[in-house]
Amino acid sequence: MSDYRVIEVKQSVFADNNADAARLREELKAQGTFLINLMSSPGAGKTTTLKRTIAALKDSVKLGIMEADIDGEVDAAAVEQAGARAIQIHTGGMCHLDADMTRQGIREFNTEDLDLVILENVGNLVCPAEFDTGAMRNIMILSVPEGDDKPLKYPLMFKNCQLVLINKCDVLSAFDDFDCEKVVERIHFRNPECKVIFISAKTGEGFDEWIKILGEWICEFNAGNMAAPVHYDI
Amino acid sequence: MSDYRVIEVKQSVFADNNADAARLREELKAQGTFLINLMSSPGAGKTTTLKRTIAALKDSVKLGIMEADIDGEVDAAAVEQAGARAIQIHTGGMCHLDADMTRQGIREFNTEDLDLVILENVGNLVCPAEFDTGAMRNIMILSVPEGDDKPLKYPLMFKNCQLVLINKCDVLSAFDDFDCEKVVERIHFRNPECKVIFISAKTGEGFDEWIKILGEWICEFNAGNMAAPVHYDI
Repeated sequence: MSDYRVIEVKQSVFADNNADAARLREELKAQGTFLINLMSSPGAGKTTTLKRTIAALKDSVKLGIMEADIDGEVDAAAVEQAGARAIQIHTGGMCHLDADMTRQGIREFNTEDLDLVILENVGNLVCPAEFDTGAMRNIMILSVPEGDDKPLKYPLMFKNCQLVLINKCDVLSAFDDFDCEKVVERIHFRNPECKVIFISAKTGEGFDEWIKILGEWICEFNAGNMAAPVHYDI
Repeated sequence: MSDYRVIEVKQSVFADNNADAARLREELKAQGTFLINLMSSPGAGKTTTLKRTIAALKDSVKLGIMEADIDGEVDAAAVEQAGARAIQIHTGGMCHLDADMTRQGIREFNTEDLDLVILENVGNLVCPAEFDTGAMRNIMILSVPEGDDKPLKYPLMFKNCQLVLINKCDVLSAFDDFDCEKVVERIHFRNPECKVIFISAKTGEGFDEWIKILGEWICEFNAGNMAAPVHYDI
């Protein structure tokens, strides 16, 4: 039996999503819930990365995962099996989540005792980057098969992320035109402060470093020392 | 010296994009230009597939390529080098092209003698599927590393395509959880009429079949026997 619910969210009634995102950030701060917005292309490995992250954290952190999809429930079932509370959000064809849609999802956990909520945004490098969800950290996964030129083509996504996980490093040898130095250089061209970690959600490579940063973020958030991320609209 | 131009297109002033797309299809029919709309996720291999397609066609077909991107000109330079006329379209942050944006791009070729124009849409499985560009055929590339579950998650994209090219088959052995039978089954679940071809833009596998279909389409179009595709809005 599955515990996760499927929520059909409606686009925000708020004209000013940036202001609403700031409000949601204050609400989550007050209840002590650290929200991360995870973005990527379709098939870059968000769900597999989450499953391994859940396995590393589930005994020490009260964790909720929101799976946003146009349709389908494959991912919510998978993360629930991995040991996290899960909510499946259906966007009704919409290509992104805004702050109020995120709020609607978080409410459905029906609890305020979660330490960490990760929002798995719709697989898309364009629209999700334009909407502040109210998260304290925006992160993205770029997978090796997608190519090292993506920071050149999707500037806003890379500008609005504080961390990029470069996934599927286990197949680097099959994609020998992927230049690891160049991709870091291109990410830093868009966003000099952005952290970059090379991982493989399949083999576990790089997860020590990612889980360490995640732990530091949670401490920083709980200590009240974390500044809200700057959101660029263009 | 590059010949290609960079065009900043504006979103359509037409409220009814479907009607405008039908108009553009008539205009292109009158001038004998067959328009294909090529869609995919970021990094699925649209440009590499185009380069190999151009190489196969350039001596027999007058070919123009429109490269739509949020930003950057990497792709237009690449396809021009491969031997096609190229136009780089900048969408100004927009996640898709509509029919009038497509028309603005086609006009910039400044010629009506092109037999075939291929529009490389913005890398995105969500928004481009919602907008009829006026193309006679919509095709998409799904690459093996993205996974075989994509037809479940992006239904509209698969409903609106007449052909799916499954690319990067040269790395199938590195992605042993990709089920070739299941992906075809899932595509046909969304769209029973959809053609599916397995290719590798890197090695050339499957290109004979793809170029053959393309040739048949061009003949059918020139003979006036091609029906406009049905466009699903949801």
